[in-house]
Amino acid sequence: MHKLYHHSMSVPSRYARLILGEYGQQFQLVEETPWSRKPDFLKLNPAGTLPVLATGDGRSVCGGTVVGEFIDETVGAMMREKRLMPENSFDRAEIRRLVDWFLIKFETEALHYIVGERVFKQMKRSEEGGGAPDSSRIRAGRNNLKNHLKYIGWLAGNRNWLGGTRLSHADMAAAAGISVLDYLGEIDWDSEPAARDWYARIKSRPSFRPLLADKVGGIPPVSHYADLDF
Amino acid sequence: MHKLYHHSMSVPSRYARLILGEYGQQFQLVEETPWSRKPDFLKLNPAGTLPVLATGDGRSVCGGTVVGEFIDETVGAMMREKRLMPENSFDRAEIRRLVDWFLIKFETEALHYIVGERVFKQMKRSEEGGGAPDSSRIRAGRNNLKNHLKYIGWLAGNRNWLGGTRLSHADMAAAAGISVLDYLGEIDWDSEPAARDWYARIKSRPSFRPLLADKVGGIPPVSHYADLDF
Repeated sequence: MHKLYHHSMSVPSRYARLILGEYGQQFQLVEETPWSRKPDFLKLNPAGTLPVLATGDGRSVCGGTVVGEFIDETVGAMMREKRLMPENSFDRAEIRRLVDWFLIKFETEALHYIVGERVFKQMKRSEEGGGAPDSSRIRAGRNNLKNHLKYIGWLAGNRNWLGGTRLSHADMAAAAGISVLDYLGEIDWDSEPAARDWYARIKSRPSFRPLLADKVGGIPPVSHYADLDF
Repeated sequence: MHKLYHHSMSVPSRYARLILGEYGQQFQLVEETPWSRKPDFLKLNPAGTLPVLATGDGRSVCGGTVVGEFIDETVGAMMREKRLMPENSFDRAEIRRLVDWFLIKFETEALHYIVGERVFKQMKRSEEGGGAPDSSRIRAGRNNLKNHLKYIGWLAGNRNWLGGTRLSHADMAAAAGISVLDYLGEIDWDSEPAARDWYARIKSRPSFRPLLADKVGGIPPVSHYADLDF
């Protein structure tokens, strides 16, 4: 069985869990704290980043988008109309643009600040970069989050799903980031009703259930986090 | 004909130029300064990042890795043994891991500091983030560059090409970043002979010629930049 090295507050890890779930893959979760820089983990992925998918035969696939492409390539053809990547290359380019948007741009501009300060700084020892959260960085992240939420609202209001007519990797990438922020009570759902409707549809999928059961030590989720009717 | 919106000091733009060149695609270059945030450019790519490949039929493909996948998908099959992506999904995952390494990690840890301070800050107006270079950020980038150069040296010393036995997208991604730093005289070639041998092989390819002819206003390249026997 596949092993997925992950952390529940890591967005690309959540993305990989959603993709594996949607493609019907069984896997075992192994929690990893990449900031500890354990030599065994660095052997699996010299970049020291999450997620890493270790396949049964001793090989590993490193990184959220790389795992997404790998799973689609290896089992996507059997998914038929449930496949989360379209056939047409232009449509695929649009999905990949959005996956990069949510896993890189959204991460750099909002999640990195909010989750970095509120969650990871608490978990790390001081020599690993831990310490008291910096409120000016949290504010900067929250400011940028508004624009990202607006963009999700715009996509959700103009398309069936974020990447086009069908559910795709783009929805999984956006939902991975949104779900971490929602856990922390950072999303103002009243401000973007189209984004809320989209998230309610994603949240009710079976692939999402394990994410809604996540608990992070010392940081309980907001009360509506696992509520499908929030 | 394709149009590629690019900047000569943008690493993912150089990556797209190399990929297009290797896959035998004709294209016209359009220089763009993304920090100017021109409305017409933001219509092409709302992320405001380079490169953007505008295809003849009015559609656009945004981002370095996305352009790389698009070109491989649309014309790769005709390349036969010259195709720059392997057939096997594990081998493809390894290439993608390295493309992410060079276009994201290398960028964030080294290029962003060195090129950002030495080049882009000069080009931008003060309201765009321009100003005098910050030497402490340049130092931080140079420090990280040493490790990246060592990693290239290690890969080049242990494999035929950086991603394995055959030339691949991984070599193009690494060469894109290295060529920008080499233009600026930032590479200590004596420290990593295996990396130098690899770069000499890449540099002599026809796809590389247009990059070696690049000139950036006010910043002349180091004397060996276009020299194939450096």
